[in-house]
Amino acid sequence: MNFLHNLKFDDNGLIPAIAQDYQTGEILMVAYMNAESLVKTVETGQATYFSRSRQALWLKGETSGHFQNIKEILVDCDADTVVLKIEQIGGIACHTGKRSCFYRKIENGDIIEM
Amino acid sequence: MNFLHNLKFDDNGLIPAIAQDYQTGEILMVAYMNAESLVKTVETGQATYFSRSRQALWLKGETSGHFQNIKEILVDCDADTVVLKIEQIGGIACHTGKRSCFYRKIENGDIIEM
Repeated sequence: MNFLHNLKFDDNGLIPAIAQDYQTGEILMVAYMNAESLVKTVETGQATYFSRSRQALWLKGETSGHFQNIKEILVDCDADTVVLKIEQIGGIACHTGKRSCFYRKIENGDIIEM
Repeated sequence: MNFLHNLKFDDNGLIPAIAQDYQTGEILMVAYMNAESLVKTVETGQATYFSRSRQALWLKGETSGHFQNIKEILVDCDADTVVLKIEQIGGIACHTGKRSCFYRKIENGDIIEM
């Protein structure tokens, strides 16, 4: 797990992780990982995040069944963000029941549902 | 600009912004915006970020010419991340000269170039 030494975690020990559908390229959600959750993700092949609200590891899909199978993990130039190319089990990433968390947009100064 | 009141900026007054090619879905970069840079982005139709290192507004492309024309700005369910669907002028988003900042991946415990 040499990669851990080359990643830049923030002051809280976290790095943002963008979950992207590996086939369509759709951005499904953004969550955060600490070193432990990232190692777990690499080892198990399933996305495990760090819940900032619960301050605990969070295996995505553990309660919903909507696991995320890892296809590839990309790292950006300054090594402070990762992209998870995933297969979204059940087709739903968002806790609202929507496929993607990004179901709203800014238009005419407001945030509206698409 | 009602949307500002409904977005959750972090303790530093920032929100992560993911720039995604509006046609291919490729994730090109991740940077941060404060309220002022987001308003400027909406008003001008060109991505303006907040540089954390320089602590100043940063019109993407100002020096490189690689502006990002905004096609759509998406907001996630908990309103703490935005996705910028953009047209990348010059085809290069990364300061390294690469098209995308995400040109590396984690493989066998290391970060390797793709």
